[in-house]
Amino acid sequence: MADSTMGSDAPPPIPPRNGVNFARPRNFVTKFASHAKETFLPDDPIRQFRGEDHSTFRKAIEYFIPVFEWLPRYNLKLFRFDLLAGVTIASLAIPQGISYAKLGNIPPIVGLYSSFIPPLVYALFGSSRHIAIGTVAASSLLIAETIEVVVSAKDDPQLYLHLVFTAAFVTGVFQLILGFLRLGIFVDFLSHSTITGFMSGTAIIVCLQQLKGVFGLTHFTTKTDVVSVLHAIISNRKEWRWESAIVGICFLTFLLSTRALAKKKPKLFWVSAISPMVVVVVGGFFAYLVHGDKHGIQIVGNLQKGLNPPSIHFLNFQSKYFAAALKAGLLSGTLATAEGIAIGRSYALANNYQTDGNKEMIAFGLMNIVGSFTSCYLTTGPFSKSAVNFNAGARTAMSNVVMALCMMLVLLFLAPLFSYTPIVALSAIIMAAMFGLIEYEEAYRLYKVDKFDFVICMGGFFGVTFVSMDVGLFISVGLSILRALLYIARPSSCKLGALPDSTLYRDIEQYPTATETPGTMVLQLGSPIYFANCSYLKERITRWIRDENDMANSKGSVVENVLLDMGGVTTIDMTGIETLVEIKKTLDIKGIRMGIVNPRVDVLEKMTLSNFVDKAGKECFFISIQDALDYFRFSLVGSQAAKTQQHPDEVL
Amino acid sequence: MADSTMGSDAPPPIPPRNGVNFARPRNFVTKFASHAKETFLPDDPIRQFRGEDHSTFRKAIEYFIPVFEWLPRYNLKLFRFDLLAGVTIASLAIPQGISYAKLGNIPPIVGLYSSFIPPLVYALFGSSRHIAIGTVAASSLLIAETIEVVVSAKDDPQLYLHLVFTAAFVTGVFQLILGFLRLGIFVDFLSHSTITGFMSGTAIIVCLQQLKGVFGLTHFTTKTDVVSVLHAIISNRKEWRWESAIVGICFLTFLLSTRALAKKKPKLFWVSAISPMVVVVVGGFFAYLVHGDKHGIQIVGNLQKGLNPPSIHFLNFQSKYFAAALKAGLLSGTLATAEGIAIGRSYALANNYQTDGNKEMIAFGLMNIVGSFTSCYLTTGPFSKSAVNFNAGARTAMSNVVMALCMMLVLLFLAPLFSYTPIVALSAIIMAAMFGLIEYEEAYRLYKVDKFDFVICMGGFFGVTFVSMDVGLFISVGLSILRALLYIARPSSCKLGALPDSTLYRDIEQYPTATETPGTMVLQLGSPIYFANCSYLKERITRWIRDENDMANSKGSVVENVLLDMGGVTTIDMTGIETLVEIKKTLDIKGIRMGIVNPRVDVLEKMTLSNFVDKAGKECFFISIQDALDYFRFSLVGSQAAKTQQHPDEVL
Repeated sequence: MADSTMGSDAPPPIPPRNGVNFARPRNFVTKFASHAKETFLPDDPIRQFRGEDHSTFRKAIEYFIPVFEWLPRYNLKLFRFDLLAGVTIASLAIPQGISYAKLGNIPPIVGLYSSFIPPLVYALFGSSRHIAIGTVAASSLLIAETIEVVVSAKDDPQLYLHLVFTAAFVTGVFQLILGFLRLGIFVDFLSHSTITGFMSGTAIIVCLQQLKGVFGLTHFTTKTDVVSVLHAIISNRKEWRWESAIVGICFLTFLLSTRALAKKKPKLFWVSAISPMVVVVVGGFFAYLVHGDKHGIQIVGNLQKGLNPPSIHFLNFQSKYFAAALKAGLLSGTLATAEGIAIGRSYALANNYQTDGNKEMIAFGLMNIVGSFTSCYLTTGPFSKSAVNFNAGARTAMSNVVMALCMMLVLLFLAPLFSYTPIVALSAIIMAAMFGLIEYEEAYRLYKVDKFDFVICMGGFFGVTFVSMDVGLFISVGLSILRALLYIARPSSCKLGALPDSTLYRDIEQYPTATETPGTMVLQLGSPIYFANCSYLKERITRWIRDENDMANSKGSVVENVLLDMGGVTTIDMTGIETLVEIKKTLDIKGIRMGIVNPRVDVLEKMTLSNFVDKAGKECFFISIQDALDYFRFSLVGSQAAKTQQHPDEVL
Repeated sequence: MADSTMGSDAPPPIPPRNGVNFARPRNFVTKFASHAKETFLPDDPIRQFRGEDHSTFRKAIEYFIPVFEWLPRYNLKLFRFDLLAGVTIASLAIPQGISYAKLGNIPPIVGLYSSFIPPLVYALFGSSRHIAIGTVAASSLLIAETIEVVVSAKDDPQLYLHLVFTAAFVTGVFQLILGFLRLGIFVDFLSHSTITGFMSGTAIIVCLQQLKGVFGLTHFTTKTDVVSVLHAIISNRKEWRWESAIVGICFLTFLLSTRALAKKKPKLFWVSAISPMVVVVVGGFFAYLVHGDKHGIQIVGNLQKGLNPPSIHFLNFQSKYFAAALKAGLLSGTLATAEGIAIGRSYALANNYQTDGNKEMIAFGLMNIVGSFTSCYLTTGPFSKSAVNFNAGARTAMSNVVMALCMMLVLLFLAPLFSYTPIVALSAIIMAAMFGLIEYEEAYRLYKVDKFDFVICMGGFFGVTFVSMDVGLFISVGLSILRALLYIARPSSCKLGALPDSTLYRDIEQYPTATETPGTMVLQLGSPIYFANCSYLKERITRWIRDENDMANSKGSVVENVLLDMGGVTTIDMTGIETLVEIKKTLDIKGIRMGIVNPRVDVLEKMTLSNFVDKAGKECFFISIQDALDYFRFSLVGSQAAKTQQHPDEVL
């Protein structure tokens, strides 16, 4: 690190003991390099290539294609775990695949395709051991919502499907680019609160969508907001089918009760894991026996055998359609990426291994591109499925391979059986899955801890439920950014005082026992000092001095020195430096001395380059508050000392 | 202050000596109030109403209408100064008024009107003593550029003029609202670099515009970018009039030489101040004598006597035109406000008195609204004019009144004389004024000190010169905001070491003499900890530990404790707290103890509310690095101690 920041060309002179180190500023290249590194390579990915050379190539391969890293050390014992986990998630993937495909208005078989190829690709390139690859409800609905604008799935299912593939392709390319440019930072802008609000909102509208299936409606709206959906349901009440509704409620109760059971006895997680499969099978038999389709229980309908057909020639880049596909791809991609990376990170954390967000993006990207060539739509690592995978004891990405193989068998031989699956069963499965995503406790917690986070969360929630998913997302992200800007526009600073019998200086409001030094005001400035908060800072400091002097009139000691503790200020820009100059001027006029305590390296560099250091004089810079106070006390005695320019170490 | 932040309902318990003060979190209202206060009332405007009640009302009046504050104490001695200053700026206001009006494609007389009413209004409500009110080149051009889009000044001068008035009205209302809502913060987002770049760019395109006048062209473009202007000039070279060109060059040389003189001998500032007037008069006579208009020297043309006619009934709110007026009003308003407030602030600073940005906005707002009712267009406190006013020795806003009265006399009696003013003279005046605004040294300084600020500046500059003024503004502001976001996405943190024989802990890269404590890593975190930088922070810390341990393999001591110095972290959000929880988990797994040093009050509150404090255990919180190290050393001896939960003060 040292060389990357100090610049090998600028050997730092040994600073005067306990004096501020006015090292020669690093040249631009070194500074830029280190900043770029912090911004794009925070996890220092190339470190494993350093060291003994002979292994470098192997390491590089292992780095870019993680499978080479773990497969050699793979053994039967591990496989036993992965086999069990793989079968479990497969049993979950089949019903979910079909359900979410319906949610995206695409043929159910595509949902099954999407759980065959992508997991295999991820197993090669992915670095997480516990993610289970599959389709997600939120993104499926978002894609449908966006593409329905230009093409109706009812009127032109072919074109619609092709645009869905195109969207998946866009997502893949997008993820790949982000990954290669190491722009994982992009995903960081989806805050915890945003995701909470967005997910809860989505869960609600997805559930409402399911009422179509539960009530067996044939006419419905393509809109997703609460108002128009409820209106569609009520206005079509002629079509309500009580049989379907009853079946639906039975299934839902069953699913929710198994979930509750699993919550109580974590050992029995598998019950809730396979329950969707049970629902599908039972539902299928039932529908088959009683010819449910004749009694108002709609069924999925033809699912023919066979593996993924190629779809690369279906990708549609005509300008009049592509715009929609692009939007769908980017939006759903952003969401899916965020979800996948977050889940990957959290399991890596819990199991003490590392995942690299940017490498994950590359894996996701490849998986979606290959997917879009083989009749799959957007896939990622969903929370729910990955959780099941983890609980089922998955050890490596092999569990995804197992799932993919199970899916292959299904596609080859069993697909037709599932054509009897009642829509209502799928609706029940989706609803059950969604209930888990409505995080009201979390929202309440946000409300308790941080009101603004709560607003961000609610902005997303209501945006999604009452307008549309993308609007919800934008509102929420917009609010987060506004908050960030507002914050840097008003960095909180405070007045410091000495703690009893110690040289520690702390916020006198936080530590009422801290006492100020008469005649000297110590201010701790917040970070950053920026064009957006300079004039505020100036006014704030002026006000502090004013208040102090007002009090002084009653108390006595007037402000003679102002110390600015810049220890916490990590960066400053030109406007910021201008401001410091102005503040110094004002103080000089008032006959108050200004001292700057412990400036950080970046800040000091800018101060030096802009000649502020020379203008103010090096004797205004101190390494600690204590030293500054000593200096002031000293220079009060030999007042001459204060006038003449001298170097701190002569004083301290 | 104390009560406003600690909340009178939550008396802070005396903290354990040198222990972290886990005071009961302030309730939302107090916290919100104090934040709102910092955000919108940083200068604490209501403070003067406190204190003895009998004077409160008078004080309130004085506060809202500053004239009542200074007029009573006004005397003849002060007036002598203001009289001189007023006459001087009047002599500048006449030519500038006419010139900038031409720049805005509106009748020159409107330029004179605009220097009559608005200054009077400002004198009543303004709090700056040195601002001189008048029209500005940049805004004039920006208004023209924006309104030309919907109405051509050539084809329908009436409608065009009405829209210009409407824009002024919009600006006024906008400023008034910003002022009352105390949103001065809005203007803070125009950074020093943005203004530098934008102004320089504007100066260049304004100069190019003047070539029309200098070459006496009749056909020209309504576009402002360099390319189309140059093209227009060259394609119309048939129309070039050498007489006009020569006269123009003479005037320009004269103006620039007087400026140079004034720069050399500041005493002679008045020479450059009145030189534009000289140019107008001389030019006028010359044109009158030689019948210049017949020899290709265009003149301003009819200026009839009389004061401002009412124009309130001209304000045009038809939707198809209002959009343009709105845009023009908001954009030019933002610029004008920023310029006016900046100049006001800097003179207040230099002369040791206070101006309140928000009050200034209200004054500007009223001045522009009244102006728009009385045939004036956008006015503010321009840099150049205010500088002259200050140098001429103005003491109070009275100088504006004097200028207004001079202007009144001109309008009543002398206006027609100015109708002979040659356009070329005006062009020369504008160009001379603009040359001063091209700040190449400043741009170079930015380049030297801060590359990103330089990029922001250039973005504005090239945006203005090659596209259009609004685009330039957006680019520049956009870049500034992006930078701000990038910054908070990567707050620089550093590793601390103890300075030789002292308990000061400083960045070991900044102070190479600082030495780390074996087995303990002390990290100073940057501020804020935010959704945008959480995952970065996690990876950064993990990396530090990894590197440390890698080195350890050769050196020896492995990391046993990690101390996070949060003294500089002024705020944290939910995602940030989640992250700390995760970091703690990771460290626990690695068997590393985490300590948090000196959390600030806001941060500690959130930690308490979100139960992080209880989860982590209060013994993980330390008031200083030294205490933490002592604690660790202690608990290494009696290792039991580390296990059992105990309160810092038992340890320290």
